[in-house]
Amino acid sequence: MYRLELTKPDGRQLALYGRQPIDPHLQAPSPFAEPLNASAHLRWHPLRGEWVTYAAYRQGRTFLPPPEYNPLAVTRDPANPTELPAGGWDVAVFDNRFPSLGQAPGAPAPPELIVPTAPAAGKCEVVVFTQDPGASLGALPLDHIELLLQVWGERTQRLGEREDIKYVLPFENRGAEVGVTLHHPHGQIYAYPVVPPVPARMQQVAQEQYAAKGRGPLDLLIEAERASGERVIYEGPHAIAFVPVCARYPYEVWLATIEPVPGFAGLTPAQRADLARALKTVLLKYDGLWQRPLPYLMAWYQAATDGLEHPEAHLHAQLYPPYRTRDRLKYLAGTELAAGFFAMDALPEEKARELQQVEVRL
Amino acid sequence: MYRLELTKPDGRQLALYGRQPIDPHLQAPSPFAEPLNASAHLRWHPLRGEWVTYAAYRQGRTFLPPPEYNPLAVTRDPANPTELPAGGWDVAVFDNRFPSLGQAPGAPAPPELIVPTAPAAGKCEVVVFTQDPGASLGALPLDHIELLLQVWGERTQRLGEREDIKYVLPFENRGAEVGVTLHHPHGQIYAYPVVPPVPARMQQVAQEQYAAKGRGPLDLLIEAERASGERVIYEGPHAIAFVPVCARYPYEVWLATIEPVPGFAGLTPAQRADLARALKTVLLKYDGLWQRPLPYLMAWYQAATDGLEHPEAHLHAQLYPPYRTRDRLKYLAGTELAAGFFAMDALPEEKARELQQVEVRL
Repeated sequence: MYRLELTKPDGRQLALYGRQPIDPHLQAPSPFAEPLNASAHLRWHPLRGEWVTYAAYRQGRTFLPPPEYNPLAVTRDPANPTELPAGGWDVAVFDNRFPSLGQAPGAPAPPELIVPTAPAAGKCEVVVFTQDPGASLGALPLDHIELLLQVWGERTQRLGEREDIKYVLPFENRGAEVGVTLHHPHGQIYAYPVVPPVPARMQQVAQEQYAAKGRGPLDLLIEAERASGERVIYEGPHAIAFVPVCARYPYEVWLATIEPVPGFAGLTPAQRADLARALKTVLLKYDGLWQRPLPYLMAWYQAATDGLEHPEAHLHAQLYPPYRTRDRLKYLAGTELAAGFFAMDALPEEKARELQQVEVRL
Repeated sequence: MYRLELTKPDGRQLALYGRQPIDPHLQAPSPFAEPLNASAHLRWHPLRGEWVTYAAYRQGRTFLPPPEYNPLAVTRDPANPTELPAGGWDVAVFDNRFPSLGQAPGAPAPPELIVPTAPAAGKCEVVVFTQDPGASLGALPLDHIELLLQVWGERTQRLGEREDIKYVLPFENRGAEVGVTLHHPHGQIYAYPVVPPVPARMQQVAQEQYAAKGRGPLDLLIEAERASGERVIYEGPHAIAFVPVCARYPYEVWLATIEPVPGFAGLTPAQRADLARALKTVLLKYDGLWQRPLPYLMAWYQAATDGLEHPEAHLHAQLYPPYRTRDRLKYLAGTELAAGFFAMDALPEEKARELQQVEVRL
């Protein structure tokens, strides 16, 4: 993996990654000239016992690009800079201009309110998967996907080393149905000042299970899913993908290493290569299902970076496509959002069979 | 409150409620002749430590009505029965034909799988707010809304008395944006066999606070919101509505009694009347905001019906409209769904001001 680190004219950081060496003379462009004035703050939700972040400047974006403008394309015309330079790189990571988390130097203190408040420490990064605006993550070559897994590992390690960052979540929102208007293949990394509610809950459950049985719940589930085989979508020497027996979304798929690994940075080259194959297989099956790009939310869960040991952690991705059928969305409504109790009208075994039948070529 | 209880030809229960006495000769129609064959089952999600319900028959609905057919209208032509009889009633409650929870007598045992499974005990009811298909909850007269609050109380009490029901959640999904295709004003009641994750978390937080301070977190928050006044939308002698300081949705509003009451059944007539005024005020302000019906999810939280004392419980509603601005939806994506960490790009104070400025006439 080759890397070049640059600073944008507005002070944001940009890192370029390549399978080949990168020209050290590249310059970092920015559509914005002025320094970022980020000052998100947190408010305590006293009923749910969790933090909520407020970044009110996000809605006031003065930057209104024309519809054909793609800020994630490489800059062709220096008079109309994008976020990225032309040149030989494969994956790029830069600071989000409109972060939900993060504080500019000298940002004002959080407001004093009737609930506890705090500066929204943390960081939001944008990860551009490829220079090709018409590609998709699943369509990239395997060694390009492997590079991305390496990049996620490096970002996690760097962010996680910061004292104020307790959890790093790489994710991809794909498709207009999940609110994404920018179709250039990209994802995001949120680095949180706390372990957020969902990973915190999963961590607590896993710790209890690990203490009782010496193995985490995902490790045990993978053993059972492999033995059953009924819902398995991909199985290689080191990685597996399956529709979990407890899927909450019809086409939900989980991807993991077979042996528990706490995070991307702990992957061996062989594990990483097989995880890339598993990921490419799932994404191509998704797009093959109805011969069109399937929208999804993909999140990668790793060990918290809170300075504690996490032997219970097990790197894995959860993918949630928002469709129930070819033309019907699954809306999260009363029971899912208000009660947190998911109701499924499809059986995971049936959906797994549909995905198993989609043929793909890596 | 007057009540008439009936049984539909397919065996489902129907209860009609009125401000006036109801003709005891009314008959319960049903679009379905055959008994319901419900057999939802639960599967344990070993990573999140929660149950998921599976009701696969829901997707296989053979009943495909024409688009103009409204099953919640009263039956005009006995050859084309709807769910409800014509006659003098105001609010109707009947068993959902496609329940996510519930077991028909003699239903098969849940499947044996690689995770624990269980019969999906519980019940799903449909609550029709009015006979008028073109009305809306907020447009109903105050005494009609009071009746609905009474009905919610009666249903909660009856369902909660059942040994297998631990939590009762009345809610309304309104609008195509939250997945509702049937525009006749109606809501649902889910009666769960467990305390679901979100109320369970709120209950745990409230119990800790109550043990430490002798008052629950909502009671304390309401005191502070009243003292501040900045985000208050309605304040009467017994009820209050406000954009909470910790709102997770731009136009989120909470409605509650000022004095803690554990549930609908514990309301005094004066509290119920004021809560109806608060609810009507908020819903009319919602629809007045952009002079069009605002979609929302509204959920009413009460004490669990698990047989324990719940002095920490405080009846309230949380309302989540899915819009960020007049023409932009707030999508729940990576950070909200995968991390459970909400990011807001609007300040609750600003949104409260917008709602405060909408004038309504009760």
